[in-house]
Amino acid sequence: MPKPERHVLVCLNTRPPGNPKGSCGEKGSEVLFDTLKSMVKERGLGDRVMVSRTNCLKHCSRGITLAVYPDNVWYGRVEMGDLEEIYQRHLREGRPVERLQMPDIPWE
Amino acid sequence: MPKPERHVLVCLNTRPPGNPKGSCGEKGSEVLFDTLKSMVKERGLGDRVMVSRTNCLKHCSRGITLAVYPDNVWYGRVEMGDLEEIYQRHLREGRPVERLQMPDIPWE
Repeated sequence: MPKPERHVLVCLNTRPPGNPKGSCGEKGSEVLFDTLKSMVKERGLGDRVMVSRTNCLKHCSRGITLAVYPDNVWYGRVEMGDLEEIYQRHLREGRPVERLQMPDIPWE
Repeated sequence: MPKPERHVLVCLNTRPPGNPKGSCGEKGSEVLFDTLKSMVKERGLGDRVMVSRTNCLKHCSRGITLAVYPDNVWYGRVEMGDLEEIYQRHLREGRPVERLQMPDIPWE
């Protein structure tokens, strides 16, 4: 089984405070990444779902940014309070969370 | 255009020298990542292909490990000399490089 059933990318890019773009790191993506990774492991999806930290995913002003492959579903403005829904609905049941999907905007 | 046409993940995990698993970082994945990112930008795919660095992609002994989404093609034992072929054949022409594909083995 070389390929995860789902692979979640979490942007951990951090820009200095005051940068006009903002950044996912500034919005708490390190803790969000750690939390999602723990949820996946502790609740039994650890052998099917991979959670990876990345550098900038180019949607800085709409962070925290997540991407879920191979579904190719991108989420924006993700907060800690959204993780339960992402975990249950998308990662466990395979139904993307519509309300969090990234709009069709250019890369930053 | 919120989603890249192709998204290449490069594992940059580094373990201490002598670790039995080995690691992609030890095999030069930082330079490989920088090189691939530059190729994509300088040769005109920068607005369609995203190249991201990640933590461990769980195929340590077969690193350097790359994953290409949404194709869901995983490559193992990638070396600097393979980048030209990955770039030309897969990223530009959309044909995965068979000889580099990761075998069907468990995560490490």
